[in-house]
This record gives sequence, C-alpha cells and structure tokens, in this order.
Amino acid sequence: MGHLSQKEYDTALEPLLHELSDAARWIQETGQRLMVLFEGRDTAGKGGSIHMFANTLNPRQCRVVALPSPSERERNQWYFQRYVEHFPAKGEISLFDRSWYNRAGVEAVMGFCTSEQVSSFLKAVPDFERQLVDDGIYLFKYWLCCDQEKQEERFADRLNNPLRRWKLSPVDHKARQLYDAYTEARERMLAATDSPHAPWTLVDYNDQRLGRLTLLRDLLDRLPDTKLPEENIPWSKLGHDPIKERYGVMTPIPSYRWNDRND
Amino acid sequence: MGHLSQKEYDTALEPLLHELSDAARWIQETGQRLMVLFEGRDTAGKGGSIHMFANTLNPRQCRVVALPSPSERERNQWYFQRYVEHFPAKGEISLFDRSWYNRAGVEAVMGFCTSEQVSSFLKAVPDFERQLVDDGIYLFKYWLCCDQEKQEERFADRLNNPLRRWKLSPVDHKARQLYDAYTEARERMLAATDSPHAPWTLVDYNDQRLGRLTLLRDLLDRLPDTKLPEENIPWSKLGHDPIKERYGVMTPIPSYRWNDRND
Amino acid sequence: MGHLSQKEYDTALEPLLHELSDAARWIQETGQRLMVLFEGRDTAGKGGSIHMFANTLNPRQCRVVALPSPSERERNQWYFQRYVEHFPAKGEISLFDRSWYNRAGVEAVMGFCTSEQVSSFLKAVPDFERQLVDDGIYLFKYWLCCDQEKQEERFADRLNNPLRRWKLSPVDHKARQLYDAYTEARERMLAATDSPHAPWTLVDYNDQRLGRLTLLRDLLDRLPDTKLPEENIPWSKLGHDPIKERYGVMTPIPSYRWNDRND
Amino acid sequence: MGHLSQKEYDTALEPLLHELSDAARWIQETGQRLMVLFEGRDTAGKGGSIHMFANTLNPRQCRVVALPSPSERERNQWYFQRYVEHFPAKGEISLFDRSWYNRAGVEAVMGFCTSEQVSSFLKAVPDFERQLVDDGIYLFKYWLCCDQEKQEERFADRLNNPLRRWKLSPVDHKARQLYDAYTEARERMLAATDSPHAPWTLVDYNDQRLGRLTLLRDLLDRLPDTKLPEENIPWSKLGHDPIKERYGVMTPIPSYRWNDRND
Repeated sequence: MGHLSQKEYDTALEPLLHELSDAARWIQETGQRLMVLFEGRDTAGKGGSIHMFANTLNPRQCRVVALPSPSERERNQWYFQRYVEHFPAKGEISLFDRSWYNRAGVEAVMGFCTSEQVSSFLKAVPDFERQLVDDGIYLFKYWLCCDQEKQEERFADRLNNPLRRWKLSPVDHKARQLYDAYTEARERMLAATDSPHAPWTLVDYNDQRLGRLTLLRDLLDRLPDTKLPEENIPWSKLGHDPIKERYGVMTPIPSYRWNDRND
Repeated sequence: MGHLSQKEYDTALEPLLHELSDAARWIQETGQRLMVLFEGRDTAGKGGSIHMFANTLNPRQCRVVALPSPSERERNQWYFQRYVEHFPAKGEISLFDRSWYNRAGVEAVMGFCTSEQVSSFLKAVPDFERQLVDDGIYLFKYWLCCDQEKQEERFADRLNNPLRRWKLSPVDHKARQLYDAYTEARERMLAATDSPHAPWTLVDYNDQRLGRLTLLRDLLDRLPDTKLPEENIPWSKLGHDPIKERYGVMTPIPSYRWNDRND
Repeated sequence: MGHLSQKEYDTALEPLLHELSDAARWIQETGQRLMVLFEGRDTAGKGGSIHMFANTLNPRQCRVVALPSPSERERNQWYFQRYVEHFPAKGEISLFDRSWYNRAGVEAVMGFCTSEQVSSFLKAVPDFERQLVDDGIYLFKYWLCCDQEKQEERFADRLNNPLRRWKLSPVDHKARQLYDAYTEARERMLAATDSPHAPWTLVDYNDQRLGRLTLLRDLLDRLPDTKLPEENIPWSKLGHDPIKERYGVMTPIPSYRWNDRND
Repeated sequence: MGHLSQKEYDTALEPLLHELSDAARWIQETGQRLMVLFEGRDTAGKGGSIHMFANTLNPRQCRVVALPSPSERERNQWYFQRYVEHFPAKGEISLFDRSWYNRAGVEAVMGFCTSEQVSSFLKAVPDFERQLVDDGIYLFKYWLCCDQEKQEERFADRLNNPLRRWKLSPVDHKARQLYDAYTEARERMLAATDSPHAPWTLVDYNDQRLGRLTLLRDLLDRLPDTKLPEENIPWSKLGHDPIKERYGVMTPIPSYRWNDRND
C-alpha cells in the first residue's frame, strides 16, 4: 500500500475526526467514561497518536496523563494508586501516555523492580481492570508495534533534530539493545493481561500515519452508536456593527516582522 | 502585510520553535520555572497558541493548566489556592489556559462574583505575583486581542464546523453582546495589575498565525540567553541487523484501508 | 461484668497501648501498611476508638481519614477513587472514620443512591478488597454495635452537651427512626462482603470503654508477632547546665490566671 | 502559682472548651476560616495543644496538618506551595503542627537549607501572610517556649516511656546541643515576621497544662464575639420501645476479659 503522504493522511483523517468529535459529545452528554492506554515500542508513535486526540478535543474534557517517575512515597504505595487519581469522571476522557503497564515493560526489562513484583503485577491486573470495566468505564488498551529498522530511523531523527531531541530519554540508548527483551516482556504481558473484559489491541506503526488511522478507526468501531441528534445552538445576529478593539492603558506590541527575517 | 499563508507561517515558525526548544532545555538544565498566562478575548486564539508550545515540548516538562469551574469547596477557599497547586517545579513550564484573571474578566462581566470581590482581587494580585517573581519564577502574562469582526467570523466557524463546536461555550452567546464590557474590564484589570515585576503584554490576534509568531518571539526575547553547549548524546551503531517484530500471543489488527474509503 | 470505671479502663488499656506502640514501630520498621475501617451504628463509638489510636501514635505515621460528602466530580468517578488516594504507604496506618461502606449503609438506607448502585457496590467490594490484601495491606474492618437504648442515651447526651452537639448530624434525627433498616442493611452488607481475605468483626459497644478494649485486643491478636529488639537510642549527658529561655524581641504573654477565674 | 494538677486543669479547661465549641460553631455558620500555627521548642507541647483542639472539635471541620519532609518535587517548588493546599475553606479550621516556619527554624539551624534561602524566606513571609489576612483568614501564630531543664526532663521521659518514644526524632539528640542556636533563630524570625497583621504570640510552656490554658484563652480572646443564638434542634420522642441489636450473619466477638488480665 506504500506510505501515506501528509495529504492523503489529512484527507483520510478528516472524517474520522468528525466521528471522534461525535463520540466526545456522546461521552459528555450521556456521562460515559473513556480511558485509552497507549503503550508500545519506544518511538512507535504514542505521542503523535495522543496529539491526534488532544488537538481535536476539549482539553477540559480530555486529559493526557503522562506521569513522571514515581516519588519515594508513591513507590511505597499500592502500585495502582497514583494512576487511580487520574481516572475519568463521567463525561471525561483520559489518555494515558504509558500506564500501569510500565511495571511489565520498562521496569521489568530494565530491572527497576523485582521479578516477583512483575509476577504479582501480572496476576493482579485482570481483576483490577475488571473492576473498572464492571463499573462501566470504557477501557481501551493499545500496544503500538514497529520493527527495529523503523525504530533506528526514528532514533536517528531524534538525535539529529533538535526539536525532537527531548524525546531521547536516558534509557533509550540501552533500550535499543534490548529490542528482543522488550518483545518477550510484551508477549508475557499479553498472555497474562489480554482478557475478555479488557483485551489488548496491537497496531502496526511502521507507518505512523497509517497506524494512527488504524487505531482511531478501531476505537470508533468499538464504541456503541454515538450519533446524537444535532445540537441546536441558538445564535442570533449581532444587531450592530462589530466593535473594534480600543486601548487605553497600553497597546499591543508590534507584530512580528516575518517578511524581513525570511528575506 | 496581509495574512500569512500556512506555508509562510510554517517557514517563519520553524526557527522560533528551535529557540523555544533551546529555552526548554535551558529551563530543564538550570532548574528555572516558567509560567505563561494566556488570557484574552473569546476566540482570540489561546488554545492554538498553547498547542504551539505543547506540540513542541515534552509533556512531562510542559503542563497545560485548564481548570474547570471551581468546585463548591474551592469557591470557599483562598481565591488563588486552586491555581497554586499547578505552579511549576524547577525545570518545568506551566501554560495557563485562563488563570486567576478569570475573576477580573468573565466572572466580573458575567456577574459570577460581587464587585467587591473583583476589587479585592485587583488589589491583591500585584503582591501575589511579586511573591512568585521574587521567588525566581519567570511569569509572562499575555492578553490576546481581536476585533469583534474577527470574533464573529470565528464564532460562525465554531457554529458551523462540528470539529470546533465544543469551543462554543454556553456563555459565548451572551459574551458577544458584551464586547464593550469585556474591554472595560480588561482596561480596569490592566490598570490595576500591570506592574514592573509582572507586566502585561497585549498581542494582536486579528491574524492568529501572526499573533502566535509575535507572542513567541516576545517571550523568547525576554528570557535571558538560553543557549547551552550542544548536548553530547553518546550513540553507537546497533551492531547487528535490525530485528523485526514477531508475534506469539496475538498479531496487529489489519491496517485501515484508506484507499478504498476514499475512492 | 458491669460497666468499667474510667480507672479500670485506664488500667486495662495501658498494656494494650504498649502493644499498639510496638506494633506501630514494627509497621514502620518493616514497611507494613495497615488500614482499619471503623463502621457501625450512629453513636456507637467510632470517634472515641479512633482517638484511642490517634492519641497514642505519631500523626505523621497514623492518619485519620474522615472524608466529607463527595463533591459533584467525585460523585461521577469510580466509587472507590476518592478513598484510594488515602491508602497508606509502607510504614503507615490509615484509620477510616467511615469508608466506602457508606454506600451499603447510610446511602442505601437514606436513599442517597439507587438500589442498583448498592447491588453493584456489594458485588464489587470483595474483589476490590482482595486486590489490597493480595498486595500485602493489612485490612481490618470493624462494625461497632449498640442497642437503641444506648443510642438514645447518647443522642440525648449530644443534644444536651454543647461540647458534643456537633456530633448530631442532620440525618441523625431521621436515622434513629430507621434503626431496623440499618440492621437490615448491615446484615445484607455482611452477607455480601464478609470474605476470608477481608472478614468483618462485630464489636459490642454498649459499654464503649469495654468496646474499645475489645477492638484493640482483637486487632493486636491478629497481627503477627510485632516484637522487635529494643531500640538503642544513643543519648549522652547534656554536658553543661541547662539553658534558660531568654527573650529579645518579645516575651511570653502572661499565663492564664486559673485560680482567680475559678474562685 | 505552682503546677496545675490534672484535676485543676480539667476544671479550668472545661469552660474554655465550651467557648471553643461556640467559636467552632460560629466559624461554621458564618463561614470564617481559622489557621493556627503551632511552632516552638522541641518537647514544648505542640502535640498536646493540638489534641486539646482536635479532641473537642469535629474532625470534618478541624484538620491537623502535620506534613512530612518535602518530596524531591516539593523541594523544587515555591516554598509555600505544599502548605497552601491545606488552607481552610470557609467554615474550616486548620491546625498546623509546624508550618512554613520550618525554614527559619529547624532547616536554618540544622543546615538543611542555605542562609540565602533563610533570608529570602524571612523577607517573603510578611507579604505572604498579609495576603491571607487581607483575604479574611484568621491567622494565629504561637511559639511555645520552655527552658532546657524542662526540655531535658521531657526528652528523658520520651527515652524511657515506650509510648512516647516515637516523639524522639533523629534530630532531637543534636537539637538539644543547639538550644542557643534555636533561640537565636527564633529571635531573628520574630524580628522579621512579627507584623501588625500577623503577630506572634509566645506562650510559656514550662507548665504544659498552664501553657495550654494560656494559649486557648488568648486565642478565644482575640476572636470577635462568637456567641450565636442557641441552636434549636428538633427532637421528638422515639415513639416505641428501643430496639435491640439482632444478628443474623455473625455475632460480636466476645468482649475483652479485663478482670482476669488484671488479677
């Protein structure tokens, strides 16, 4: 099928964003709660996928949860505790940029926890998630896949593009040597935590644009019919000539002289 | 100068984003704290300006603070209390999509608080902000201006474009009838809270792209020299053929068939 | 056996408090987590029991969790969410003055939630609590019983003693008419949520002093051996005459002249 | 005047607790906010003073704030930030067991912060507190004094009484060698932060019972008249014989056999 161009992507994405927008209104008006977990290979495209949602939706409805490393106190709490406080209330969407599955991924592979902690975690997860699903939360779990060839290309881009260099975390250099170990950790995690009530969905992100379309289409297809009658927003004529800004205390600063700079 | 095209904007923006990226690294490495308040006319372009930052920066460093209406308990607290908990720690950036200035803007104009509360607020702000600036926080306060003609165009776009309709809040219809009252509230607010330690900056957002460039250029110019020596990220060859994804428990779902749908 | 006098109570309590103190040190030093839920009949003696713990233990280790009515946002979250954030970290004790069981008690009897919500809650609790117990948390659930005759005496005391009148909540007057309904709600709750991993313990609080001794003895008996070797706190002589307070900027206010006032 | 006996203390305290209780009702019903800071010499009696309040008042109205050492992230925030979130809402009382003044006390004396940080803190405090007082918060700041002779007695008691040994913190042993340094730090702090809007009150706690009476009397005297008309709580006869507990699922555990144990 080849790679999608930006233009092809934009064209394909547009109708999906309209459906997403409808779904968000349905969530709001019917009081649903939606949680989407974005997990996956480093560089696969979690951030870009989350931006696809966050740039379309109301930030007061849709919250991105990207937790830092746990504090000392958090490390001594129930493992799920610091995630629970970010769960959506009715009408809300929480997008998790990584999640409790850190314990079965980076923490397990990098040795940030004991293997006993990993086993306990994998055993606890299905019941934990069933609690949420039984409570009526829509829980979607996506794992974004990509081959190491793509990963290396994207690491190289981050290395060379100052705008993306912050995406290179200290563990990345080591992580790329552990591609296989991550695969094994993922397989173990899938075997233990892919459940009827909270299934995993793997999405191929070797082409990130295609990956985003695939993920979004899948998510929309798995929600019930979210079409609501069109909103009727009463809106009248202004009734007078539009008013211009007027300034007393101070005036706007001069606009950026973009022509000059780009001569 | 006319309106910037998307392409002209992208070209002009690129070098500024590199400077922003440098500034973010400087904030991180030298432990600075940056707070940017985005206030202004409805539809002026707060959200788009915030996206300009947030799409470039590390979400673990740069947090968008878009608070909902205060809860019953919050309404009974010190007015600044619920904002304080979102202040940046060293190395962090907080972008406030509206801020404590709600009290002098929408709350004052719409009558959500008493005029005595507005007066107390305006009196308290300069000292409150001096505390923060004295503590070493970089505090930038932007007010985004636009004429009502532009505002009406943008309201119409929100009304007609389902992707943006969530931006039409219930108070917007009333707010547009109060364009002048908002101007007066702004002038009063500027007179009371434009201080040497925490000055206001007005930016003309009649052309939103130009407005964003102007705001970003201004912010960068007011930071000290943020250029740090280039990072030296050690990066070695992979040392073996790149590995392909392999799947045991489950395989990725089929990719979205975008060609078919767009036939 | 008759009622315990204050003196008999103090004598009997003393050795138990020493054991409690040992247990707290064991919790601290071995990184245990202890949660105690205090539920029961209105006026039974939850507050006094909690004070017995809190007055003995380090407030930085032992936290009393007495949550107010849920906020609008909390009412729209996962029911357990607002409790989870108060779970103990390693080394800590959380004493819950009422708990998630509100849903099966006051909320059910008073009609603050639907009967479907009660049923869902009762179904969810055993799994929820198993998560915590499997994670290694010590979870104790006490329900404090008393006959209505005692309850009426205590309500009368609250009514007539200004120091206790705040304990009369607005629902108390109605609640006393619903003694039987509370019994039935308790029985249903016990049937659904008394589990091998998180059993309920009923304690007779018709004599509150005896009730407190009984509860504390039971809790201590169910912890493992908490005796640790005596702490060796190095402590040397002061090495000089003790110093007296001296005052420059200001002096203490005059002490309360208690003799005069009580003439 | 000599030391108060327990009985004399109880007799003198009783009417003060009634006034405190009235004041709490006044705070609740008129929507006041009260903050009391308890600072002072180690062992002076902060904890006991706080218990005097907390044992009398509704824990849902009166919160004890005893913060642990700051987390890594908190150390990188605005110094006041972690305290602000515990400020009282209308109708509430916050009792601070130590407070932001740590920076001028233990942190300064023990070298947990730089002398520049102490200076900045002392300079910032009066404005910070003025913000709160201007906002209508009642702010009381008590510093509890005692001579080293008393302090040594109390340290010895903590060392020898297992029930109080948790009160011996690791820094205590060093702190007693620094009695004079603490005095100097206090004097500097008083000079910088005793302000007309938020004055300090020193209370002599060489006799702790007398100290508590003195502190409470002072606080009550500085509140406005808090007497409200008596509450009229409607209360009817029960209308039937009181009901006895009856048990289906399980029965209360046997009561503690205190006689036997104390033979």
